[in-house]
Amino acid sequence: MTELLAVDAGGTSTRAIVLSSDGRCLGFGTSGAGNPISSGPEHVAHQVTTAVGRAMRQASITQLDGVAVLAMAGSRASAPTDWIAPRLVQAGVRGPLVFESDLLATFCAGAWEPDGYAVVAGTGAAAIRVRGGRQEAVADGIGWLLGDAGSGFWIGRRVARAVAAQLDRRGPATALTGALLESLGIPADTTPLSPAGRPEALGALLEAVYAARPIDLARFAPLVFEVGDDPVASAIRADARAALRTSLRSIHRLDVSGPVVTGGGVLGRLGLDVAGLDGMREVRRVTDGSAGAAVLALRHHGVAVDALMFERVRTSLELVRTSSPRDPVS
Amino acid sequence: MTELLAVDAGGTSTRAIVLSSDGRCLGFGTSGAGNPISSGPEHVAHQVTTAVGRAMRQASITQLDGVAVLAMAGSRASAPTDWIAPRLVQAGVRGPLVFESDLLATFCAGAWEPDGYAVVAGTGAAAIRVRGGRQEAVADGIGWLLGDAGSGFWIGRRVARAVAAQLDRRGPATALTGALLESLGIPADTTPLSPAGRPEALGALLEAVYAARPIDLARFAPLVFEVGDDPVASAIRADARAALRTSLRSIHRLDVSGPVVTGGGVLGRLGLDVAGLDGMREVRRVTDGSAGAAVLALRHHGVAVDALMFERVRTSLELVRTSSPRDPVS
Repeated sequence: MTELLAVDAGGTSTRAIVLSSDGRCLGFGTSGAGNPISSGPEHVAHQVTTAVGRAMRQASITQLDGVAVLAMAGSRASAPTDWIAPRLVQAGVRGPLVFESDLLATFCAGAWEPDGYAVVAGTGAAAIRVRGGRQEAVADGIGWLLGDAGSGFWIGRRVARAVAAQLDRRGPATALTGALLESLGIPADTTPLSPAGRPEALGALLEAVYAARPIDLARFAPLVFEVGDDPVASAIRADARAALRTSLRSIHRLDVSGPVVTGGGVLGRLGLDVAGLDGMREVRRVTDGSAGAAVLALRHHGVAVDALMFERVRTSLELVRTSSPRDPVS
Repeated sequence: MTELLAVDAGGTSTRAIVLSSDGRCLGFGTSGAGNPISSGPEHVAHQVTTAVGRAMRQASITQLDGVAVLAMAGSRASAPTDWIAPRLVQAGVRGPLVFESDLLATFCAGAWEPDGYAVVAGTGAAAIRVRGGRQEAVADGIGWLLGDAGSGFWIGRRVARAVAAQLDRRGPATALTGALLESLGIPADTTPLSPAGRPEALGALLEAVYAARPIDLARFAPLVFEVGDDPVASAIRADARAALRTSLRSIHRLDVSGPVVTGGGVLGRLGLDVAGLDGMREVRRVTDGSAGAAVLALRHHGVAVDALMFERVRTSLELVRTSSPRDPVS
């Protein structure tokens, strides 16, 4: 029996799993955000080794000789590894290091089948087509300025612009305005005007938004689910659903049928519409790509992951996850 | 006779005028970008004093005792002046310093009348209502993240997203794609795919866009006027026109009628639709707010600017402007 390592590094947290080559998860550990594009490689290397150390401690091992899979955004097989490999060796990880797409890990967290699709909408948004266990095509996932249609940023930006338009008396009244101003601690009284002729609440909103990073607009996305049947919020939700469906449809092929795995906090609340897309009947929701990273580690070790093996990974992961002392989910 | 100073500081250049209190412009000078929000006060102070020095040289004066009006974005009467006042005193400007809105300067560059409207669409976009010579209300002008609907940034972002969507095979084909890729020197061949399943041209576009500042997306705006009757470009133009009309309509009041002055490079090419907006029959185009800053200086000096005085300002400004040795327009 060999011990393997699987890491799922995402924009909000990093998760590491130690598992044996028969599919049983032995240890689980988490740490902070691990997106190398938004956080920088040094920070990510630290998060990954922290999570790995916690998983190894729970598994009661100090050395690990099997393959180590790192699933993260923007990764690919040919990526340089020198920013992380020496750190992992130092932590006792001696096996070969393999990078995988975080989107493929999401798919594999919900499906052992070789073919299918995955759609993720968290802060960003993307869809992939999987054939023979490999990511064959991707739609969107190209970041907040150029794409990520239907993502948390995309929705949050629409929310903030709708609120600004109402305060500016260019746009319709929406319940989003009260909710957003309250979340920022800005008095909702829109009567007092600045010398330039603007409501003070708008000035305060401008100051708050431009003082933060653009990507932080994503924090306003949850409001579209919280204001009831407001027509502006409904329109944003409908447009986001349509954008995600467009991404999925653009990579749909009739010769690839299988489950559609969905991930990301925004998609969990939006729901995915796959009506009319042949071969996409079953939608499966996952909370993250941990189990998928473990499945990919097994496959790289030469293990054929079937329905039975998949169930063993998921069940044993759930066990170590809930008993992991450092897991904030538990 | 007293000499007055008028400065019109914008996002792309700064213009200074020395004029006498009878309305004759005596000197004109230009320098670089002067938006204190995007460029920082130190840089703007340098640009303003450079332009003022050139205008005073052309006017053959070394000291100036009348009022000095500085028209710039985000300014207001109560703004602190310590970042610029000592620099101007050093340059020989001894009169009182008054800040004015750059939008009001645009209005006054096209209208001596006390009432009316101005709409500007350059990199940003805004509309104002003017009553009794003062800016009474403003719509939009709240920046690229939250507003500036119909601006150069707004259009350029739409262009870049439409191109990215086509390359990503999520969006319709558009002539904007070839034009934009050519402007960035990216080969338009979309066949080769990256390991993640993306066309190489899309990867190159992402690298170019994310390496620049978000506001630099404005550089793609001119493409919507250059690709002929492409349906995607037409839709962006129509939406921009509608957004600017919405801004103008939101500040329209039946008891304020007068000319509508338009400014900014984007609006010059888009055109403004004022059909159905009562009291807005006459649309007047200006290239910048220089003449308006001069009009505001005269008014602060106590001069009533009527049609005749207005004509004198404009004619004499044109003369010094075309003979100004440092004016890049000449």
